Amino acid sequence: MAVSEIMSESPKVPKPTIERLAIYSRPLEDLLEAGSPVVSSERLAILCGVNPAQVRKDLAYFGEFGIRGLGYEVKELLKAIRAILATDRRWSLCILGMGNLGRALVENENFKRRGYIFVAAFDADNRKVGERLACGLTIEPVAGIKDIVSKLHVDIGVITTSQKGAQRAADLLIDAGVRSVLNFTPAQVRISSSCFLENEDIGLKLENLAYHLTRIRGARATK
Amino acid sequence: MAVSEIMSESPKVPKPTIERLAIYSRPLEDLLEAGSPVVSSERLAILCGVNPAQVRKDLAYFGEFGIRGLGYEVKELLKAIRAILATDRRWSLCILGMGNLGRALVENENFKRRGYIFVAAFDADNRKVGERLACGLTIEPVAGIKDIVSKLHVDIGVITTSQKGAQRAADLLIDAGVRSVLNFTPAQVRISSSCFLENEDIGLKLENLAYHLTRIRGARATK
Repeated sequence: MAVSEIMSESPKVPKPTIERLAIYSRPLEDLLEAGSPVVSSERLAILCGVNPAQVRKDLAYFGEFGIRGLGYEVKELLKAIRAILATDRRWSLCILGMGNLGRALVENENFKRRGYIFVAAFDADNRKVGERLACGLTIEPVAGIKDIVSKLHVDIGVITTSQKGAQRAADLLIDAGVRSVLNFTPAQVRISSSCFLENEDIGLKLENLAYHLTRIRGARATK
Repeated sequence: MAVSEIMSESPKVPKPTIERLAIYSRPLEDLLEAGSPVVSSERLAILCGVNPAQVRKDLAYFGEFGIRGLGYEVKELLKAIRAILATDRRWSLCILGMGNLGRALVENENFKRRGYIFVAAFDADNRKVGERLACGLTIEPVAGIKDIVSKLHVDIGVITTSQKGAQRAADLLIDAGVRSVLNFTPAQVRISSSCFLENEDIGLKLENLAYHLTRIRGARATK
């Protein structure tokens, strides 16, 4: 089945399913590298920390990648997931805010491997402008964002400014013509409804850990 | 209702609910700062990007924080969520791998504000050991991890090494007595079942954006 058909046949895939497809692709990449031809939904579920019924249900949205009684063909399943998530293409990213998190992102080898290429880096601080980064990019002034976004056909804008600078960064990106924004600050950013925003709060998982630690301790104390 | 009662009365809260509680706390912090006494489930849902029925369902797990017809008392609800997530306490963290991401995390002011205090930073690279960080910590050699974890009562270990170094980092943490691990690398880390592991893959959200961009473009192309 062609990807376009898969997508036109699944007009309303729930967001949690889309999020889990990316999670499934991680162990599939490892299995492919290790030369495993087939993986069962049970094994894939264990590797991803979800339950097997969930794996089967999620993958059912996108047609039949399974072989009854055996599992899924690793190579075909990964190819299909990449096509669905559109990670089989090259995406151009720009980033605003070149602190430590911004630097960590542009130098992340996994992004590049999955086709996410940072093509421009901006900072509002003139002392940082002109600095050459390890990845090869030079930090640009935000005043130049419109020209650069248009010239380099930027698909996705990433915000790694301070919390206070996030809304201005989002406004600059949208004004420059970027239609998808990934916000790494805890700020509640507002953008035009015709654009797409994802928030990535790297502190959220810490709070989950604290919750579980409390429960582990509670359980020990009552033993 | 005391927190211990809430927790003992809710032995099995689904993980997605716990994750959303942390998400709800973000706009509640802003509303509290802005002096808003009450928030409706509709408003809270919009601020968090989830649906109002979900907000009501999630909060129902933890007893009654709502005022019928009005909404929730901001201060009381935030206090209750913090108590449930145990973010009303101080947690000691150590971190392994002092590249850009590690530095971004230890210098994050929001962690500190929520009670997550980095008390030690380690790196396997001897050239980094001894370096004084902006946050005041000095990078320690991994050989000293056991002593430091025990002396400083570390609750949570954070892994920001390379993908290849992640399993060794996890082994070092568990061996040193850490019971909760937050892995920021894309590596599939294995730890003892008596410990708790969270994986934070900062690339996942990018793949969601790519999926939605493709669909926006597809929709435009078919118009």
